[in-house]
Amino acid sequence: MSAIDELTAELARLPGIGRKTATRLTYFLLKQPAGAVERLARALEDVARRVRPCGVCGNLSELDPCEYCADPRRDATTLCVVEEASDIGPIERTGEFRGRYHVLGGHLSPLDGIGPEELRLEGLRARVANGSGVREVIVATNASMEGEVTATYVRETLSGEAVRVTRIAQGLPAGGDLEYADGVTIAQALAARREMTD
Amino acid sequence: MSAIDELTAELARLPGIGRKTATRLTYFLLKQPAGAVERLARALEDVARRVRPCGVCGNLSELDPCEYCADPRRDATTLCVVEEASDIGPIERTGEFRGRYHVLGGHLSPLDGIGPEELRLEGLRARVANGSGVREVIVATNASMEGEVTATYVRETLSGEAVRVTRIAQGLPAGGDLEYADGVTIAQALAARREMTD
Repeated sequence: MSAIDELTAELARLPGIGRKTATRLTYFLLKQPAGAVERLARALEDVARRVRPCGVCGNLSELDPCEYCADPRRDATTLCVVEEASDIGPIERTGEFRGRYHVLGGHLSPLDGIGPEELRLEGLRARVANGSGVREVIVATNASMEGEVTATYVRETLSGEAVRVTRIAQGLPAGGDLEYADGVTIAQALAARREMTD
Repeated sequence: MSAIDELTAELARLPGIGRKTATRLTYFLLKQPAGAVERLARALEDVARRVRPCGVCGNLSELDPCEYCADPRRDATTLCVVEEASDIGPIERTGEFRGRYHVLGGHLSPLDGIGPEELRLEGLRARVANGSGVREVIVATNASMEGEVTATYVRETLSGEAVRVTRIAQGLPAGGDLEYADGVTIAQALAARREMTD
């Protein structure tokens, strides 16, 4: 296979990138000034070589423990449980959470052969066990069917521990038009309605 | 910058890939089995190191002259002029062209500072000069404004040569509904109408 076909085939393996986009990317890269393609290649190698799951929380990082686990200013009494390491960034950008994280590494999905053993659940239990000082576990798995099932499983896993288990809210997204919201979202927004205080 | 941020930034430089997609790709790559990311990195390095413009036609290839210029079975009397090396693949896949190619390396675009000197026009003239044996030049630049202007310029450039200069047809695309075609396409399809023979 030629170098061009080889690169196109590798790019086409990426999610959301079909054969045509891969071809377009390859020819785009071929038109870049010297060094640009090598820079991308080096960035890939660096990530493959240096990034590992944090031994404490499972976040993907060059540090172990990762920057959040190692930061003494972060509130160690609150853990936020997410499905993937990539979920941490969006939460961090809100600036509304100063606790620590726990990355499950996915969600329960029996059809894909992902049971509780495939997730970082034992590590979570160990982190909230008696004497750890953790007082609240915020379950921030996705608002999908699998995320809900996983959230329920997390709560059950922690049922014996002296810890508060909470779930992030579901409802209309900010700026969301009721007219364009789907029925399930509206139903959840209704069910989770709160008293308005003045 | 962390290795993750570095790779995300590099991926976000690619066309059609924004910040969010770049992040998604980075985390996708981090979940791949060992070796997959290195394979992509190596494919990039190979392309950067081995692929060069063909000295004859400008096609991007690991060979010089490229596979089309070097193939003695291809008809050397017909040249197909395209804007980019990436235009050759789609033409080859039709199986309808067995001549050779000439890659201009873009289209005329005064606003972007791309004049005739930036395109491979002198090389084209040399290839069709007297005694070369080239009898027809098919101008297959895009059906865009710039492609049309470039096509006209190619024809003028070759006006002194004893060669037939043709332009690929424009009209309704195969399977195209008249109802959904834009006005310019319909106008061109009308203007280029042909006698129906039985």
